Amino acid sequence: MSEGFEVAILGATGAVGTRLIQQLEQSTIPVSKVRLLASSRSAGKTLQFKGQDVTVEEAKPESFEGVDIVLASAGGGVSKKLLPEAVKRGAVCVDNTSAFRMDPDVPLVVPEVNEKALYNHHGIIANPNCSTIQMMVALEPIRKEFGLKQIIVSTYQAASGAGQSALNELKQEAQDFLDGKEMKADIFPTKGDKKHYPLAFNLLPQIDVLEDNLYSHEEWKMIHETKKIMLDDMDSTDIKVTATCVRVPVPISHGESIWIDTVDHDAASVEKIREAVKNFPGAVLEDDPEHQVYPQPINATGKRETFVGRIRPDLENKGAFNLWVVSDNLLKGAAWNTVQIAEHLVKDDLVHVN
Amino acid sequence: MSEGFEVAILGATGAVGTRLIQQLEQSTIPVSKVRLLASSRSAGKTLQFKGQDVTVEEAKPESFEGVDIVLASAGGGVSKKLLPEAVKRGAVCVDNTSAFRMDPDVPLVVPEVNEKALYNHHGIIANPNCSTIQMMVALEPIRKEFGLKQIIVSTYQAASGAGQSALNELKQEAQDFLDGKEMKADIFPTKGDKKHYPLAFNLLPQIDVLEDNLYSHEEWKMIHETKKIMLDDMDSTDIKVTATCVRVPVPISHGESIWIDTVDHDAASVEKIREAVKNFPGAVLEDDPEHQVYPQPINATGKRETFVGRIRPDLENKGAFNLWVVSDNLLKGAAWNTVQIAEHLVKDDLVHVN
Repeated sequence: MSEGFEVAILGATGAVGTRLIQQLEQSTIPVSKVRLLASSRSAGKTLQFKGQDVTVEEAKPESFEGVDIVLASAGGGVSKKLLPEAVKRGAVCVDNTSAFRMDPDVPLVVPEVNEKALYNHHGIIANPNCSTIQMMVALEPIRKEFGLKQIIVSTYQAASGAGQSALNELKQEAQDFLDGKEMKADIFPTKGDKKHYPLAFNLLPQIDVLEDNLYSHEEWKMIHETKKIMLDDMDSTDIKVTATCVRVPVPISHGESIWIDTVDHDAASVEKIREAVKNFPGAVLEDDPEHQVYPQPINATGKRETFVGRIRPDLENKGAFNLWVVSDNLLKGAAWNTVQIAEHLVKDDLVHVN
Repeated sequence: MSEGFEVAILGATGAVGTRLIQQLEQSTIPVSKVRLLASSRSAGKTLQFKGQDVTVEEAKPESFEGVDIVLASAGGGVSKKLLPEAVKRGAVCVDNTSAFRMDPDVPLVVPEVNEKALYNHHGIIANPNCSTIQMMVALEPIRKEFGLKQIIVSTYQAASGAGQSALNELKQEAQDFLDGKEMKADIFPTKGDKKHYPLAFNLLPQIDVLEDNLYSHEEWKMIHETKKIMLDDMDSTDIKVTATCVRVPVPISHGESIWIDTVDHDAASVEKIREAVKNFPGAVLEDDPEHQVYPQPINATGKRETFVGRIRPDLENKGAFNLWVVSDNLLKGAAWNTVQIAEHLVKDDLVHVN
């Protein structure tokens, strides 16, 4: 056995990819070798891992020879094509795209919530959508203590959820607006769609494509991923979920305004919910109205935790509450949750050195 | 009788005040003379009304001698002190501050919803809070057709709701952020509070002060003003309302993500709600997902209407729906609704030339 795992990062040059490198550097996973994979366009670039230069290689099926763990964030199409090739070669893959999330054979995991699902993996584990993950960390302590009947969420999602070029577009638009120039939009609301609108100093109630059922694909993800994670059954109606997803002119960290109805109306209270959130791993209670303490994107950015505050009782519905949740969409929403899953795979002996 | 009404604008130099002048210029009210009133600091400035120079005067009780209509937007303290003086001198006042909104003797009016309440005025009519007004225009067509049992709203509120200096602060912070400088906050989340945080590229889940019941005063307003306007009774629980109010880095026009539960579950449908919104005065349906048509702040700014879109059925609660609403907070949310009330007072013969 070598001293550690050979880890490949697929999509190493993107907004999430660069954070996958950083989170892997800081992780407890013993790494013997790292491979940085990307499209042919980025091949040849030099990046660093723990102070050592690593040349980016073009991702091909053969790239996974000898690889033990794959951390993937290069788009759904790339994952669909290449991850089965990696599994064939003995690797376990943690996939940050939506390619396999709804596959019944693929665990969809937020370690604080459903780590046990990892035991059923067949080589691929899916990382949930960013907006779903932070909602799960905020709500699981409440669900465990009081049960959850219904979730109504409105999101305030950061530009970086659409990638590095989208983040650059937001900044260019903002500068143009401040200079009195016309803003040019090529990416938002979503790259593949027909029309594009400026995000700077604006709000776009479309994330991903709008589907025939009138929901955006992002809203669909929040509804169905929540059920798969919390109930191990994406079609269950045990928890009713509905969502409205809105892109806001913020670079990093999503906000979420969440209304919940608990099962145990007599037990649930603001004090007990605060206590449950405070004691839950990965969640940080930021809820001190008297001192104006509540979650904010500029404070959450760069941190691994999910921040929860403004917990209030719905004054006319016993057992229902409002809360406000913020987390770094590139870390807990993507790179950190992916590396965290890999850490659990190692800890639980669910991945082996080839 | 003179050729028209003598109109005083109290707080004429602010973000809303300048728009009150503009909306009055474009209104159907015959104006014989306009008086522009402000604090001593702004007295002596020259503004224009219909192309004529008008000197801003310091607002005093005597300023209202001979005035028929007062349009007030100079802060709650100023309204409390000066509007009773104006009424004493025979004027009818439309007040855009929160000073008198919850007074049972003061009608709180969105003309499209409860114009009839104007008949009970005793000299002062209150203009509701900006975030409440646009929600009322969007929901009244639905309430009229199908009834409303419950409203859960999350707001995305523009910087200009906190005034012109707040809008300037947002722009300065944005430029500093883009230049890599530290952002300085002196106003947001709310001027009178202890701590201040940057709004640019950030989200602030506090509008106005946070109260002992854990709700912000803005959230409290949305809950209680909705009941007073829709039910003519601020303590009624016939419609349950809860709110989460968030300030977003947008200059003008508030967004609102609203979940509603109707009374007549069998009758309500997306198609019928679209039809009801389309036929309601002051509301504009912008709901064509196939062509990516939905309300956006950059499109709503400068318009008097309230834009409604993304109307979707809650897939697990029959009769419940999600919608997305945007309106110019300085026009329908403030100046236009105020002038519109004055237009109705004139039309309904509820104000007279002194």
